[in-house]
Amino acid sequence: MKQDIKVSVDAVVFGYSPEEGIQVLLIKRKYEPFQKSWALPGGLVLNEESLEEAVHRELQEEAGIDVNYLEQLYSFGQPARDPRNRVISVAHFGLVRPDDYQLSAQTDAEDVAWFSIKRIPRLAFDHKQIIDVAIKRLRSKIVYEPIGFELLDKEFPFSDLEKLYQVLLDNDLDRRNFKKRIMALGFLEEVNKTLQRKAGRPAKLYRFNKKKYFELKERGYHSDLFYS
Amino acid sequence: MKQDIKVSVDAVVFGYSPEEGIQVLLIKRKYEPFQKSWALPGGLVLNEESLEEAVHRELQEEAGIDVNYLEQLYSFGQPARDPRNRVISVAHFGLVRPDDYQLSAQTDAEDVAWFSIKRIPRLAFDHKQIIDVAIKRLRSKIVYEPIGFELLDKEFPFSDLEKLYQVLLDNDLDRRNFKKRIMALGFLEEVNKTLQRKAGRPAKLYRFNKKKYFELKERGYHSDLFYS
Repeated sequence: MKQDIKVSVDAVVFGYSPEEGIQVLLIKRKYEPFQKSWALPGGLVLNEESLEEAVHRELQEEAGIDVNYLEQLYSFGQPARDPRNRVISVAHFGLVRPDDYQLSAQTDAEDVAWFSIKRIPRLAFDHKQIIDVAIKRLRSKIVYEPIGFELLDKEFPFSDLEKLYQVLLDNDLDRRNFKKRIMALGFLEEVNKTLQRKAGRPAKLYRFNKKKYFELKERGYHSDLFYS
Repeated sequence: MKQDIKVSVDAVVFGYSPEEGIQVLLIKRKYEPFQKSWALPGGLVLNEESLEEAVHRELQEEAGIDVNYLEQLYSFGQPARDPRNRVISVAHFGLVRPDDYQLSAQTDAEDVAWFSIKRIPRLAFDHKQIIDVAIKRLRSKIVYEPIGFELLDKEFPFSDLEKLYQVLLDNDLDRRNFKKRIMALGFLEEVNKTLQRKAGRPAKLYRFNKKKYFELKERGYHSDLFYS
């Protein structure tokens, strides 16, 4: 019997802000099925494009953004996951820096917005399950790779990084020793500037030492160090 | 334009023997393209089966075996990877215990055999690249999960486990402290039996403590401990 299966991509794009924590990008569907439901950006792969190209195109078309980092997450292939036709979705996982947060809904998205991962609305298809797998990947990455380069501003106060680790490690962070340990890994450097956010003393700014950062990203390290 | 993409699964199945090291299961293709080339077992997904079901079916059909462990590896989707038609392959990664090594070529495989990962022949399609990704996954898994339950006999001499780690860590293993460290993790227990393999003293046998093993598999640990 002829194979009757379609291939799509979906993207779980995470952003981070010290106020909102980890956020995920969702679009509101313009058409059936699941019309007006929130869903992950994504769609069918075109015949001539690679899977990654399809993700970049869909993000541009549906949300008007691009990502700083993209990797393949997992392929979801349960036969009944789409009511129209069997569709296997190759899900991807992306990270966006705050500077690149501006969104604009286009084509088959009626709206597009960031949602805190603590307040995700009811989603179309199996997209909640896809997000759960992506959150698990994000949390496990932080244990063996430096994360932040793709989520924080290029220059940031140390407290932003600390909060990011706190959020991802579910507040299990050993705050007392965190700074000493993270500085010892050598991928952060002080910038000769300060930032005055609201009240309080101006905060020193830091940035990632790219060379060291990507070395550690490649080689890995173990941040059981960071758990209390 | 109508989407014209097919979906297949391929399986990188690893076995291990203390004599041969890590081995991968390959089939010899009976038909074009790449007729008589060695390739990974795999094929098109049927309309009604899940991706995992497709892998189990293909392994049964082409090699007459089943696996003790299976996980999804990565989806390979470059537009030109198959000369006939665009095919996206959802590659999987499987492990087989030595007891279950017996193979029998069937259907569209002309032959089936185990190859040491150090002596892989020229392969069809992008299958060499898929194997490279799978070997990388296997090596990185050993750093944060106990591996062996699915690769060793149910009861084995300690030296079999040590050799497995040596092979996967490329001989960087800290042999002097390995036994002490691995016993301290608590997932191994002594069996009250010995094994006489060839000449030499009979070796004590060990087995995995399943509960502790799967706890560590779930939670992870860090085996930088094991590097010298």
